[in-house]
Amino acid sequence: MSKTPDQFEVLRARVAAFAAARDWEQFHNPKNLAMALSAEAGELLEHFQWLTPEQAARLPRAAREEVALECADVLLFLLRLCDRLDIDLAAAAKRKLVINAKKYPVKKSRGRATKYNKL
Amino acid sequence: MSKTPDQFEVLRARVAAFAAARDWEQFHNPKNLAMALSAEAGELLEHFQWLTPEQAARLPRAAREEVALECADVLLFLLRLCDRLDIDLAAAAKRKLVINAKKYPVKKSRGRATKYNKL
Amino acid sequence: MSKTPDQFEVLRARVAAFAAARDWEQFHNPKNLAMALSAEAGELLEHFQWLTPEQAARLPRAAREEVALECADVLLFLLRLCDRLDIDLAAAAKRKLVINAKKYPVKKSRGRATKYNKL
Amino acid sequence: MSKTPDQFEVLRARVAAFAAARDWEQFHNPKNLAMALSAEAGELLEHFQWLTPEQAARLPRAAREEVALECADVLLFLLRLCDRLDIDLAAAAKRKLVINAKKYPVKKSRGRATKYNKL
Repeated sequence: MSKTPDQFEVLRARVAAFAAARDWEQFHNPKNLAMALSAEAGELLEHFQWLTPEQAARLPRAAREEVALECADVLLFLLRLCDRLDIDLAAAAKRKLVINAKKYPVKKSRGRATKYNKL
Repeated sequence: MSKTPDQFEVLRARVAAFAAARDWEQFHNPKNLAMALSAEAGELLEHFQWLTPEQAARLPRAAREEVALECADVLLFLLRLCDRLDIDLAAAAKRKLVINAKKYPVKKSRGRATKYNKL
Repeated sequence: MSKTPDQFEVLRARVAAFAAARDWEQFHNPKNLAMALSAEAGELLEHFQWLTPEQAARLPRAAREEVALECADVLLFLLRLCDRLDIDLAAAAKRKLVINAKKYPVKKSRGRATKYNKL
Repeated sequence: MSKTPDQFEVLRARVAAFAAARDWEQFHNPKNLAMALSAEAGELLEHFQWLTPEQAARLPRAAREEVALECADVLLFLLRLCDRLDIDLAAAAKRKLVINAKKYPVKKSRGRATKYNKL
């Protein structure tokens, strides 16, 4: 009886194999990967920068697929960065949700986008 | 016999519940979420900006945990953005890996960081 | 009769002196400066991410000063980056305006935010 | 006897005229401009992400011109953003330099890239 493989681990391994096959470990240090991730986040921004919030919420099908692939790029670099730093990304996300729940108590935060340090 | 729950789905649902409990759907349109994601990517950059690549590769334990939590922030906004756009993030990442394999053939790309359109 | 000093040159020199006094040239290579600039651009985003376009257009006085100082940070790193690369920033901006005028002819671009390669 | 025109003002006015001729004021609210600026900062990153700090410091001529034009894009959106918010960018930069001098006293900061709140 086999366990369903964890999708984070599946993707991490695929990205690592992709880089290894191209001998790209030499470029994939954490500093460079943080830059690449941020550059991809910038490409994501570009899709939305001139849209109204309403337009952004109902993207045409083709634009939505372009955005999906930009999101993929961000995730792939994020997984690669975490791999190089020995960070378990899904576990870190769970730790952060616990921290966020304390930073943004429901009572104080309901309906307000105020940053925690100004609540 | 229960299937292991997919961790992307687990996290997506937790982030959605977190936002719903705080009535934050009103702020979480894709335009705003792309901005928040990019701002978090900027915070990640800040950790590495003055480090040499060598220093970045061997972060002290405390700095590594700070970076892990920044990575978590990026992931949480990415999951939220995909949720609002009905994008399956893990599936998009797999599609993108297939595209990347064509853009960067092993033979042409080995040992070179050249962008696909200049290969 | 003295010429009014160029404000770009005034600021470039002040930033350079600031860095030299602190022996920061060792950190200020173009790669690091591009990261620092992008991190500051991310801080700028943070001010606007949860605001409606209308709210963003009428910032309270205190928020506007915070934004002004973030804009200043972006400019200071931009000047420093250009200094390290021997780029005349104001001249580059003029060259870029000429290029943009060709990329975005008034007739084709009027009232449309479409990117030049899709016009 | 005419005063040398201030280059910040010259560029601000040219960018404003460029936008007005294309009826782009409708897109140029501060939220959108902050996004566009950050997307351009991401394009700047892309030029440096796989370079060593040493390679980044001695860009070939063609790459340097590409970087110059990316820097120009950042400046043009920065000027436009400040224009829409009635911020005097050069004056803000001078205020920020004064603040930075207090945040980073020479004695404490010499030779160290430590952030002011950890000095």
